[in-house]
Amino acid sequence: MAKSPESEHPIKAFGYAARDVSGVLSPLTFSRRATGDKDVRFKVLYCGICHSDLHFSKNEWGFTTYPITPGHEIVGVVTEVGSKVKKFKVGDKVGVGCLVGSCRSCENCAKDLENYCPQQIPTYGFLHYDGTRTYGGYSDHMVSDEHFVLRWPENLPLDSGAPLLCAGITTYSPLRHFGLDKPGLKIGVVGLGGLGHVAVKFAKAFGAEVTVFSTTPSKKQEALEGLKADHFIVSKDQEQMQSTANSLDGIIDTVSASHPIAPLVNALKTDGKLVFVGAVFEPFELTAVSLSPGRKTVAGSAIGGLKETQEMLDFAAKHGITADIELIPIDYVNTAMGRMLKSDVKYRFVIDVANSLKAP
Amino acid sequence: MAKSPESEHPIKAFGYAARDVSGVLSPLTFSRRATGDKDVRFKVLYCGICHSDLHFSKNEWGFTTYPITPGHEIVGVVTEVGSKVKKFKVGDKVGVGCLVGSCRSCENCAKDLENYCPQQIPTYGFLHYDGTRTYGGYSDHMVSDEHFVLRWPENLPLDSGAPLLCAGITTYSPLRHFGLDKPGLKIGVVGLGGLGHVAVKFAKAFGAEVTVFSTTPSKKQEALEGLKADHFIVSKDQEQMQSTANSLDGIIDTVSASHPIAPLVNALKTDGKLVFVGAVFEPFELTAVSLSPGRKTVAGSAIGGLKETQEMLDFAAKHGITADIELIPIDYVNTAMGRMLKSDVKYRFVIDVANSLKAP
Repeated sequence: MAKSPESEHPIKAFGYAARDVSGVLSPLTFSRRATGDKDVRFKVLYCGICHSDLHFSKNEWGFTTYPITPGHEIVGVVTEVGSKVKKFKVGDKVGVGCLVGSCRSCENCAKDLENYCPQQIPTYGFLHYDGTRTYGGYSDHMVSDEHFVLRWPENLPLDSGAPLLCAGITTYSPLRHFGLDKPGLKIGVVGLGGLGHVAVKFAKAFGAEVTVFSTTPSKKQEALEGLKADHFIVSKDQEQMQSTANSLDGIIDTVSASHPIAPLVNALKTDGKLVFVGAVFEPFELTAVSLSPGRKTVAGSAIGGLKETQEMLDFAAKHGITADIELIPIDYVNTAMGRMLKSDVKYRFVIDVANSLKAP
Repeated sequence: MAKSPESEHPIKAFGYAARDVSGVLSPLTFSRRATGDKDVRFKVLYCGICHSDLHFSKNEWGFTTYPITPGHEIVGVVTEVGSKVKKFKVGDKVGVGCLVGSCRSCENCAKDLENYCPQQIPTYGFLHYDGTRTYGGYSDHMVSDEHFVLRWPENLPLDSGAPLLCAGITTYSPLRHFGLDKPGLKIGVVGLGGLGHVAVKFAKAFGAEVTVFSTTPSKKQEALEGLKADHFIVSKDQEQMQSTANSLDGIIDTVSASHPIAPLVNALKTDGKLVFVGAVFEPFELTAVSLSPGRKTVAGSAIGGLKETQEMLDFAAKHGITADIELIPIDYVNTAMGRMLKSDVKYRFVIDVANSLKAP
């Protein structure tokens, strides 16, 4: 019989967890493993709220096991390291993103693409190789193999930098991998939320001319003035969409709901690439003859490997890139989830964990 | 008023043309322009029959103007060159593929991608910049700006080499562009027809392990023994398809009719690329979440630029690659079209133009 969350490991832990499909989060006492030779234990300072946290809490993707403690944009300070840990010492500022494990031996892992390892272990809601559950960063502390722990750059803010661990790498990685990181390129960003607003910042930092596509005309000012995008297109406006035809080198599509793809493909120029980073499960329609005359590409991308995540954090620190956040206490989390569902946040909620999570 | 095909130019020409949606081809007298400064005039020796020729003859894509003389896999011998022609002299063996013109000044043309120039002039069925029509290679002779004329490699057969000018470059170009030309890669080819059988030959020449996907189980022997493919998968067999999951670096999909895409995406490994080269107008269904966990790509590709077409011909000559053909007299063309429609050809018909087309 499986042990209870409280007793399966020796170290007491606590956090917030959803217990059923209502997705309502409430305090939970559980446990974490002792610090292994290669493990880093750290006190959680801040944790961003990703839309996935809501999907998981409500079991909207159908593979949640309860109780679930979300959170994979986690920043903290090291409190203990294992005897074989090389990269970290007590007191270091660190981050953990979407992964806490991978097989370390497959073709993907060998290429620093732990994010595509078929045996990857997501930071929450899945099983460790020892069969115990993973719990995320809406909690007092974390423990992870040092391979999955990021060095936090000296001058990168801890709170507004936290969302980079998911929203940041998810948009930075495809911009880099698909060659959309060259100065002077014309880059589109679809959706101006947690992912989209960071995508605009990275694309601008790479030297791109950025076009934001949004269904919400009222976001024009924030896109152009707040985020320094160069153009704003209302994606429901066919005339505006047609004005972008054959003009873009690449598009990062951050929208997580079904939406028309053909007008975006139409906006690509020769060799243009449309990359999905949102988790859209509904099929979209596409024709081969919309891709061939221009050798266009439609692709997907999921977060990034650990090496690239570190590179992204260092790049963000160097270029002053952080998320625009609203810092909240942890007992506001259910309200925050509700507001996020209505896109009522600019652009990411971050939980001030250390200052608001009280031991039960 | 537009002049008649016979009188719009000074040089008499004749060939076979379709005159209505029946697509039936019959002799036509028309005219071609005088040899301009940069033009090459050549006697047509051989011309391959591409499936597009049938689509155009029957106006199946909706933009045919009659009469139409098809043919864009044309090999011949030079009979006259303009005063400024540098690359060719009388007596040279030459080829013309799918294009006889492009703007020569756009971003695509500057990158030797005339095939993606929005103002490209296809070899038949379209208008020259002077407003006169283009007529293809089912005819006694051709005239073209030397930029669109290929040098024919010394040891490349004229008849079985002709189909390389469309079927060859259409499959060679995406293998090269998408990095699917490295030894040891695992490459899939969907459809074993005119394009597919040449795709297998190029992929093998690049050093790939090749899997053929076909709906026709009886093609297994020819694929493995005749074309030296390594594996054969019946694409309608779900179990066989599932056995290919996450195994291929790239797939060249040559099928021109609607077919399921998801099992092909499933066959790709991380960073795998599925490239459509067939003209499928029906939309296919795809989900973003089938692409993201593996950073998979779906793309299209259309023929190739002139520089790459020359490179392909030279590569084919060096590696002994030709199409498997059935050589026919031109008065067999309507029967050949009917057989092609039933896939009753291994794998390309080539018209022995010089020896069978008689002046009216």
